[in-house]
Amino acid sequence: MTFLRNCWYLAGWSREVGPDTLLPRRLLDEPVVFYRNADGNIAALHDRCPHRFAPLSSGKLADGTLYCGYHGIGFGTDGQCVENPHGPIVRSLCVQAYPVRESQHGIWIWMGDPDRAEATPVPDLQHFHDVPETAYSNGYLHCAANYMLFVDNILDLTHADTLHPDTLGGGSYTRTKVKVSEHDKGMSLQWHCWDEVPQPNMRLNGFTADTADSWTEIEWQAPSIMTLRNGAVPAGTPREDGKNFLVAHIMTPETETTTHYFFAATRDFELANRELNDRIAATRASIFTREDKPMIELQQERMQGQDFWSLKPVLLRSDEGAVKVRRKVDALIHAETAGRKDAPQSEPANLAS
Amino acid sequence: MTFLRNCWYLAGWSREVGPDTLLPRRLLDEPVVFYRNADGNIAALHDRCPHRFAPLSSGKLADGTLYCGYHGIGFGTDGQCVENPHGPIVRSLCVQAYPVRESQHGIWIWMGDPDRAEATPVPDLQHFHDVPETAYSNGYLHCAANYMLFVDNILDLTHADTLHPDTLGGGSYTRTKVKVSEHDKGMSLQWHCWDEVPQPNMRLNGFTADTADSWTEIEWQAPSIMTLRNGAVPAGTPREDGKNFLVAHIMTPETETTTHYFFAATRDFELANRELNDRIAATRASIFTREDKPMIELQQERMQGQDFWSLKPVLLRSDEGAVKVRRKVDALIHAETAGRKDAPQSEPANLAS
Amino acid sequence: MTFLRNCWYLAGWSREVGPDTLLPRRLLDEPVVFYRNADGNIAALHDRCPHRFAPLSSGKLADGTLYCGYHGIGFGTDGQCVENPHGPIVRSLCVQAYPVRESQHGIWIWMGDPDRAEATPVPDLQHFHDVPETAYSNGYLHCAANYMLFVDNILDLTHADTLHPDTLGGGSYTRTKVKVSEHDKGMSLQWHCWDEVPQPNMRLNGFTADTADSWTEIEWQAPSIMTLRNGAVPAGTPREDGKNFLVAHIMTPETETTTHYFFAATRDFELANRELNDRIAATRASIFTREDKPMIELQQERMQGQDFWSLKPVLLRSDEGAVKVRRKVDALIHAETAGRKDAPQSEPANLAS
Repeated sequence: MTFLRNCWYLAGWSREVGPDTLLPRRLLDEPVVFYRNADGNIAALHDRCPHRFAPLSSGKLADGTLYCGYHGIGFGTDGQCVENPHGPIVRSLCVQAYPVRESQHGIWIWMGDPDRAEATPVPDLQHFHDVPETAYSNGYLHCAANYMLFVDNILDLTHADTLHPDTLGGGSYTRTKVKVSEHDKGMSLQWHCWDEVPQPNMRLNGFTADTADSWTEIEWQAPSIMTLRNGAVPAGTPREDGKNFLVAHIMTPETETTTHYFFAATRDFELANRELNDRIAATRASIFTREDKPMIELQQERMQGQDFWSLKPVLLRSDEGAVKVRRKVDALIHAETAGRKDAPQSEPANLAS
Repeated sequence: MTFLRNCWYLAGWSREVGPDTLLPRRLLDEPVVFYRNADGNIAALHDRCPHRFAPLSSGKLADGTLYCGYHGIGFGTDGQCVENPHGPIVRSLCVQAYPVRESQHGIWIWMGDPDRAEATPVPDLQHFHDVPETAYSNGYLHCAANYMLFVDNILDLTHADTLHPDTLGGGSYTRTKVKVSEHDKGMSLQWHCWDEVPQPNMRLNGFTADTADSWTEIEWQAPSIMTLRNGAVPAGTPREDGKNFLVAHIMTPETETTTHYFFAATRDFELANRELNDRIAATRASIFTREDKPMIELQQERMQGQDFWSLKPVLLRSDEGAVKVRRKVDALIHAETAGRKDAPQSEPANLAS
Repeated sequence: MTFLRNCWYLAGWSREVGPDTLLPRRLLDEPVVFYRNADGNIAALHDRCPHRFAPLSSGKLADGTLYCGYHGIGFGTDGQCVENPHGPIVRSLCVQAYPVRESQHGIWIWMGDPDRAEATPVPDLQHFHDVPETAYSNGYLHCAANYMLFVDNILDLTHADTLHPDTLGGGSYTRTKVKVSEHDKGMSLQWHCWDEVPQPNMRLNGFTADTADSWTEIEWQAPSIMTLRNGAVPAGTPREDGKNFLVAHIMTPETETTTHYFFAATRDFELANRELNDRIAATRASIFTREDKPMIELQQERMQGQDFWSLKPVLLRSDEGAVKVRRKVDALIHAETAGRKDAPQSEPANLAS
């Protein structure tokens, strides 16, 4: 499968990599190891020693140098060998180093042309700068389905009425036409559910009015980053009075049929309420784990490895956003691969040749 | 693999589908969901929503309408959408519905040309109409081998002398030449073991004579339905005095290398003896589970995915019935596929195109 | 994958096959069953009945005849049918019999041209003739990696400095240049680590001097048999005063990506010390199981089914022996396959055609 390469992918949460951690993670079907150098800065190398192909993540970290656990060759964060117990340090003794950044509690990796990384800012998740710990949570799910199925899922929130009847259901998403608008940073989707039946989770959070004006606004950035703003007020009340939940859903391809699903959440009210924070985080993780993930994995299974379009899905009005996003991602990938005709599409050639 | 399509396959036992059951079952490598409509009649749909490919079997049944669990689209037993919360009901919003019947405690499905289903009667298993509960049992085994290996197994009963020494062994099958005769409904095989050593299970069932006249008569129907009549009398006694066990072995392909193995049993004596019924059922299930199934799965494993004939089996006299049946099935499949050259051989094209 | 065929492979340890054992073992991707005839002599047959392809290893052994457990056909140790309950014994009713030998506690099999087996002696492991039980141990590991990766591992002992820091580490192997010499029986590798830091396991075994002269000398025979002599003396002491550990590492391919790893050990001192023997055996098995096997299996995993050379390993001085051996094995296989152009490369054709 061809993935978009010239973009930043979320590879993990910062808390996953401590000072002594070697975190192996497959991304875009390439093995990568993440760790911190002596200054605590994150580094990412191709997770395969160029000598005998042992995973560097099975090695040892000492003073920011990553040593292969099989024959003891040491590499710097730029991928070049810095210690070779078996002879001279030759230029070919190196592994690919990936540009990495830490931002908004996450570790971001650039797996395309490294020269283009510097000029490209890490995606702005908007809501997650300077958030107090008591109003922040994040999570991770390893999922057995293609990443775009998870993007589809978020971009068609009508699924909530059927799949999440006890929390987000009630039919308001389905009765409301989503507004989709493309712009230079990506795509915006707006569900404005005016004068509607309150959703069950609003009741759980203390909403008592009979009818609600609620909104869910999604900002999508290519290829698979989405941030949501969601809130509600008693019908007819000024929206400014409402509380907002702020959520990010970020999917990074592991392989063609498996996905690293990252999510984070904050809010614009009761920022110091840790108990509330814990309760919201637990509910959200439970919904993803018990409702979205199993259904989407079953979807993947039923597709039996076939291409989404080749199966000729019957598209509905509610698919508008997801379809536009899929076409956009396909176009971006096409443009990218057209621009590097002879370049490797999957794993990079070993640099030691 | 190409399967015979214009025939009725046993898909399950009636008891497997209660009023609220959604039974997913892969048949001829297609996913199917079985359920009952509001009148209790059985229905079978292609188990994949045409919208986003979620399995319908993960949805919900209400008043005979099957709702996809992902976006709530409802389907009737004819496969047509009857409820679309997201817009108009268009003709393309449908899934394949399969002709189904209930007969002789079983659910039968037709996966070929639906126009030909009506004129084709469901296979007659002969012994299983109007059988009292106290003289009936059935069972199911999921097996990891091609369905024709299980057909071979029943059609060469000499295997019993080696594989089932404690119940059916003793050598009488091997010493007797089977009579094979083809007729317009299928194939008949007769083992008439006259003046023979009684089989161990006859002793267990109270047979005391030193020598026995025993018979096992098989009726095979294409592609993989077999009914057996088996009994014994003291040697020289009129056969009419004997008791008969009546058994069906029915194999339905799940995939090329896995099989739904159904079996049922009754008898023509002591019809009200429930204790006897339970004992016979337990013994039979034990033999299949502990002796036949493991050996045939090992056979499949040793064939390593290769075609049976390409491995050049050394055929013996006792293979006559199995070989004739294999050739007949091959001819039927060949005739069928020749008649629909451009038709799909495996999964049907999505109707929503 | 093409394996060298005209050579003796170690298939198991003699103790693995008792008088009633049927040992199934896949070798060079062919299923083989090992057993003993009535005289206790070892026999090896293709483990697939020519009739219906059941594994003969699921059958029964009686008076040296191996009976298929499915239909009772009996085979002699030459693979010819000796009993057919279903008709005449025809010549086609046979399975391939492999030349086998027992030697040096092991069962050896010849999977190439049988006419060449007689003239080829079983590999001499040198150290394992007439060894008392109290100074001998052997072991077996089933490993999920190509056999040549295990050969590489032994032929580059510098890995010990990194992978086995608590027993064989300290850097002496890495600081010493191995001497590699090819000869008509194979390849010799010599690590002579003079005036070096003693290895940790030497300390455990009572070595008290500050510096050591130690040696590890490997004799390699094609394709994957290695015997080692390893010992040490206080630096400057005559080598003749030293004690030697004598070890064999023998890898037999199961499939392209799995290996039967056999090892055996003895010594030239304290031959009656059973307690010492047990302690050494336990330590050695622990190192292989917890250090070598996992690392090499990870190596295999990272190679993702690609050919070793196609991945362009960066070769180091310490790879000299392994690279020469790989080229030698490739040349032997090439010579062999060139000589039998139309011959089967993997599983032999069924003889019953």
